[in-house]
Amino acid sequence: MALVVKKFGGSSVATTKKILAVAERILSEKKPDDKIVVVVSAMGDSTDNLITLAEGIDKHPYKSAYLREMDMLLTTGEQVSISLLAMAFQKLGHPAISLTGAMVGMKTDSVHTKGRILNINPSRVFEELDKGNIVVVAGFQGADKFGDPVTLGRGGSDASAVALAGAMKADECEIFTDVDGIYSADPRIVKGARKMKEITYREMLEMARLGAGVMQPRSVEMGYYFNIPIHVRSTFNDKVGTVIREDYTMEDNYFEIRGVAHDQKVAKVAILGVDNQPGIAHKIFSALAKANISVDMIVQSIRNLERNITDIVFTIEQTDLSEAKKVIDKVAEDINATTVLVEEDVAKVSIVGAGMVGSPGVASKMFGALAKAGINIDIISTSEISVSCLIKGSQLTEAVNAIHDEFFSE
Amino acid sequence: MALVVKKFGGSSVATTKKILAVAERILSEKKPDDKIVVVVSAMGDSTDNLITLAEGIDKHPYKSAYLREMDMLLTTGEQVSISLLAMAFQKLGHPAISLTGAMVGMKTDSVHTKGRILNINPSRVFEELDKGNIVVVAGFQGADKFGDPVTLGRGGSDASAVALAGAMKADECEIFTDVDGIYSADPRIVKGARKMKEITYREMLEMARLGAGVMQPRSVEMGYYFNIPIHVRSTFNDKVGTVIREDYTMEDNYFEIRGVAHDQKVAKVAILGVDNQPGIAHKIFSALAKANISVDMIVQSIRNLERNITDIVFTIEQTDLSEAKKVIDKVAEDINATTVLVEEDVAKVSIVGAGMVGSPGVASKMFGALAKAGINIDIISTSEISVSCLIKGSQLTEAVNAIHDEFFSE
Repeated sequence: MALVVKKFGGSSVATTKKILAVAERILSEKKPDDKIVVVVSAMGDSTDNLITLAEGIDKHPYKSAYLREMDMLLTTGEQVSISLLAMAFQKLGHPAISLTGAMVGMKTDSVHTKGRILNINPSRVFEELDKGNIVVVAGFQGADKFGDPVTLGRGGSDASAVALAGAMKADECEIFTDVDGIYSADPRIVKGARKMKEITYREMLEMARLGAGVMQPRSVEMGYYFNIPIHVRSTFNDKVGTVIREDYTMEDNYFEIRGVAHDQKVAKVAILGVDNQPGIAHKIFSALAKANISVDMIVQSIRNLERNITDIVFTIEQTDLSEAKKVIDKVAEDINATTVLVEEDVAKVSIVGAGMVGSPGVASKMFGALAKAGINIDIISTSEISVSCLIKGSQLTEAVNAIHDEFFSE
Repeated sequence: MALVVKKFGGSSVATTKKILAVAERILSEKKPDDKIVVVVSAMGDSTDNLITLAEGIDKHPYKSAYLREMDMLLTTGEQVSISLLAMAFQKLGHPAISLTGAMVGMKTDSVHTKGRILNINPSRVFEELDKGNIVVVAGFQGADKFGDPVTLGRGGSDASAVALAGAMKADECEIFTDVDGIYSADPRIVKGARKMKEITYREMLEMARLGAGVMQPRSVEMGYYFNIPIHVRSTFNDKVGTVIREDYTMEDNYFEIRGVAHDQKVAKVAILGVDNQPGIAHKIFSALAKANISVDMIVQSIRNLERNITDIVFTIEQTDLSEAKKVIDKVAEDINATTVLVEEDVAKVSIVGAGMVGSPGVASKMFGALAKAGINIDIISTSEISVSCLIKGSQLTEAVNAIHDEFFSE
């Protein structure tokens, strides 16, 4: 017997036909004693349709005064899909019941449209499982202390599935998605990318932070917190996917790194010819922080030791570039910098793996691979379980393939 | 200051434009200190669209196993309209909040899709009113002891508005509808029909029972129980409508009757030539009751005193006729009746008024009006506050007008 939470996204339940297919698939995989909780999102583009309705009242429905009512409106989306999926199970001969976020005891704060889960009391879910039901739960939503509906914002459906699995001490949380697992590099870029059998929470978080888009960091953190294995697998086939867990259970760990991540949505800012005085870096980065701009890689290098002149180079998200330019032009004047350069044709390529701790050769192997491919490295930054290089954006595909070949060719 | 519950049906909130118009109208009528609760149905045909979705899972979504999930599905309809109406009030500058049936403490039994209200604890509604909000409430729904959503079935939105008004001891419950009040006869049939200023609960119940379609008996009973005045008025203009209440408050009571009701959806069954023995009537009507067929008017008359032979004539709803025919043909054989006749071209015309108690002239005045118009009476039945005549269906319009002229011409 296993207690499993399975999560299906909006595209998996976009039509009643697909909803019947999801029910059929779950029943075909279910062993007689398994206890199944299914978390679903709203059907296909139904959330967009609800937003369009709200725009009929006010063109800007995400004004703060409206947010509570937006949540009242948007939570109906999942309520529709859960009722239909519960009916689909019944149609196929298995008892099932649907429960909203409020009904599964998903207690959130009151930050409407961007709620955070505070705690979960899933007693109703256990009751319904004990009656023999498959329990269908509305993802992406909970209720605050007033009992008002609250949606969980970006990545919320995955988060509610993993959190519910955690609160129920489930054996596993399965996330069904449009890819069949986590790969050693983006398979759209690297032909020989390998599907991992397992990856640790920390590695997955680092991969996500460095650009791998399959899982939102939020739900990986939730899995880490509750120590719930997260099985990422495909909606379209029944292959085993990748399990995100605390540690490896199999002899699957014979590569020095877990994967190669990349991020194209970066931009570089260089402030050149700055007098190297105490407080210069603080001036620059506090001005950016005030403008709510996150800085990623930072390098400061002495250009002229005698005159104590330095260059400061850093990366930000591409979408923040025009705002950052305004902020930095002001600061540059203030600190007497000679030049401010910005560059959009950059990309970040990273290797990730807990195994690289205490393997000093790993980083140099990465640099070697890039050198062999004739790719110049602009900035290097490292964490405990990753090494990242900023390179020319136009060389990204080449770089990712070169590094992947270096580490994963047998 | 007044505490008023206002109810708008689905056609009044069919589009976001209409929702904005409803909000505008309510604000234009609101005095600064008024406390307003608005009960709304689902938008236009949104309930039908939800049912169509359910039919995508199973062509017969009203099977008993599905009913709980149908309620989970259908209650989203009002949740959409309340959130949009609350946003509309905010857009127009007045604070407002939406609450589902469960959130206003509308406790029901667990008879899904046909729930009955058990009790109401509207503390949240009072809290929100005290904060200065207009409170927008989902009609047609409540929650049972498990917290599961339950819809209230036919006439449910009116019933939840009146019940909420009762539980809150509101000053009045306004029902906005497509007619501007209760008339002394159907204005589509009688040109000179008068809009009543007031009518008692008992008279309104009798009018509804005898065919007047404006209000479902259910919500009138609810108003009677809680002693809440129900003001039936038009969505399309701001005229005063008709107030249903315990007793008249105005000198509006100078006609002997309150109104003329009619019902075309009746059929007549005659069982002729029956031996008049004890138990004959019981045999006939218990057979019909078993088949769940309601009988309305009943007449038994002796045809041949010497041989003690009798005829039994009664009316039923037209939709029950073919089923009733089967039942009666069997019984007729059993009791040796000579003939069974059925007749669809019949109609019932009735006068209603609490004032007719102790006015023996009223009934004969009605019969006289029919006689003058050359209309034959087939069956007569009376209650404490009404007299009904079964006549030829083709003569209905003539009959209603003749009676109305007799009582309402000055």
